[in-house]
Amino acid sequence: MILAGGSGTRLWPASRRARPKQLLPLGPDGESLLEAAIRRARAVAGDRILIVTAESQLEATRALAPGIELIAEPAARNTAAALGLAAAVLERRDPDAVLVMLPADHHVANEAELTRLLGLALDEVERDDVIATIGLTPTRADTGFGYLEVDPGAAGATVAVLPVKRFVEKPDAATAGLYVASGRFLWNAGMFIAGARRLLVELDTQLPVTGAAVRAIAAGTAAIAEIYPTLPSISIDHAVMEHAERVVAIPASVGWDDVGSWAALPALRGTDPTGNTLGAPAVVVDASGNVLMSDDGTLIAVVGVSDLVIVKSGDAILVIRKDQAQDVRKVVDALSAQGLARYL
Amino acid sequence: MILAGGSGTRLWPASRRARPKQLLPLGPDGESLLEAAIRRARAVAGDRILIVTAESQLEATRALAPGIELIAEPAARNTAAALGLAAAVLERRDPDAVLVMLPADHHVANEAELTRLLGLALDEVERDDVIATIGLTPTRADTGFGYLEVDPGAAGATVAVLPVKRFVEKPDAATAGLYVASGRFLWNAGMFIAGARRLLVELDTQLPVTGAAVRAIAAGTAAIAEIYPTLPSISIDHAVMEHAERVVAIPASVGWDDVGSWAALPALRGTDPTGNTLGAPAVVVDASGNVLMSDDGTLIAVVGVSDLVIVKSGDAILVIRKDQAQDVRKVVDALSAQGLARYL
Repeated sequence: MILAGGSGTRLWPASRRARPKQLLPLGPDGESLLEAAIRRARAVAGDRILIVTAESQLEATRALAPGIELIAEPAARNTAAALGLAAAVLERRDPDAVLVMLPADHHVANEAELTRLLGLALDEVERDDVIATIGLTPTRADTGFGYLEVDPGAAGATVAVLPVKRFVEKPDAATAGLYVASGRFLWNAGMFIAGARRLLVELDTQLPVTGAAVRAIAAGTAAIAEIYPTLPSISIDHAVMEHAERVVAIPASVGWDDVGSWAALPALRGTDPTGNTLGAPAVVVDASGNVLMSDDGTLIAVVGVSDLVIVKSGDAILVIRKDQAQDVRKVVDALSAQGLARYL
Repeated sequence: MILAGGSGTRLWPASRRARPKQLLPLGPDGESLLEAAIRRARAVAGDRILIVTAESQLEATRALAPGIELIAEPAARNTAAALGLAAAVLERRDPDAVLVMLPADHHVANEAELTRLLGLALDEVERDDVIATIGLTPTRADTGFGYLEVDPGAAGATVAVLPVKRFVEKPDAATAGLYVASGRFLWNAGMFIAGARRLLVELDTQLPVTGAAVRAIAAGTAAIAEIYPTLPSISIDHAVMEHAERVVAIPASVGWDDVGSWAALPALRGTDPTGNTLGAPAVVVDASGNVLMSDDGTLIAVVGVSDLVIVKSGDAILVIRKDQAQDVRKVVDALSAQGLARYL
């Protein structure tokens, strides 16, 4: 299952309220992150793919996922409800169904390695009914992600499969540094593999209202439009994973990126011989390290500038230093504060 | 008379082949340079204004100059032909007509002082039938302009009216430095004041083909569409002024700017309290010294950048360091070289 319900403005002005990151043509040849996620899903699940998305994004999602089963959330209720609903639907079809939950809006450079590790996770789940998660080996002391603490010395631990001791929230910089130096922490990328029944049992125990609701929706005894919007908005991490027994992590080095800002575009699209990442008709004079994006054929000419992100989308242009790309949120805040929310 | 026939791409992407600098809404409240030139003309000539423009720009010019007489050039033949044609037309109406020739695409901050100096020039012309020119007191050793050498010690010289010894071409940097240090050189801004008859007599002597042609066009004995395009393309400076007797310069310090690049926009429009020049809906975060322009309401958001020019016009965006603003020509050259001339 692919979770494609997110929205956000970290890639403003391309991402807007009505057009989330996973639907944007950011990749090479204009591939969206959702399409790439579908390819990764197909590699482990063939045609047995289910996408959970927001009702408001249903048509746009369907356009990028022809022939794939979609479930529309009438309201965003975070990942516990979305994953629970998928688990309930699939468990009714096959009580032994195993779910591989993949976010729709990440980038993975080494897809073959991810496929191998997901296969390993599936083996573990089928062998021992664990909840498995792909834990990314950190490449820097990033403060933007949650971490998993693993126990390499635990009974049953192997190099490939490690028991998870705890989930930790986004740390401060010093703590992140300690985490990475310790070698015992992995990035939590929200990729989980578990039996549908196991997930539902966990929900029944730890978030019983949601557990009952998603079972009722799947059974057809409750209307999704009525009950789903009333469910608690909580992540599957907080609701289930942090408290569950027998959670294991598969350490992974797969060139993963959460595409959390425009600074990720060079990793996603590569750079051209001038040293710029070009997603627009462009003229480059004495300029390098820039990311140039336009989604409507607008030409971007740059002279004498370096390490900038320049994005034209719709009725707005963003010019931001690449090393400040996280500060797009300041623009978003300013647009609201200045009565310019129509640009969001 | 206002010379509004120019074209060019120094303000690309706003200026295009079909939309020259003087027609762009660059000034405060979107005033064009042409409209500002008309205001300056009105201050010395009332309603007796004549605009010479290109046939291809006739409608766009008329829209900004309602009720003003226009002459359309069927082809651009530089300033000798344009000024000669205006002189011939006006001399037939009034043999004693005096022309004040003003370029349409410059900026003058102190218009009242210019009006005073043009009045002084008119007095000189009417008193002594000289050819007068407004010579700008240089504020820097600019290599982008031609210069006038004046003779402060000549008989008849005053502080306000100086004989012109010679016209000189755009100098190199060292020569420009010497010129400015000498105190004897002024910028030639192409503002001339002279009797129509005097101008025609000079043309008859120095550029007789043009002299005869413009007289014939004005008399109705030759068709402008047939004869005008055959005239030599030469500036009035080269054709007449450099060789004429009794040419005087009125030194002027009027905040003149030829708006030769986007770097001129702060002088034209001023800067806002954030230190940026804003000609677009804008969001500014940690950014100063930038020029932000869009002509279609496109919002420009900048974060962490300084001293850039960012211009959106039509189907193109330019991002250039302000101190490299002259290098727009490199973009224009590259567009041609890369088969992207449709963006010109």
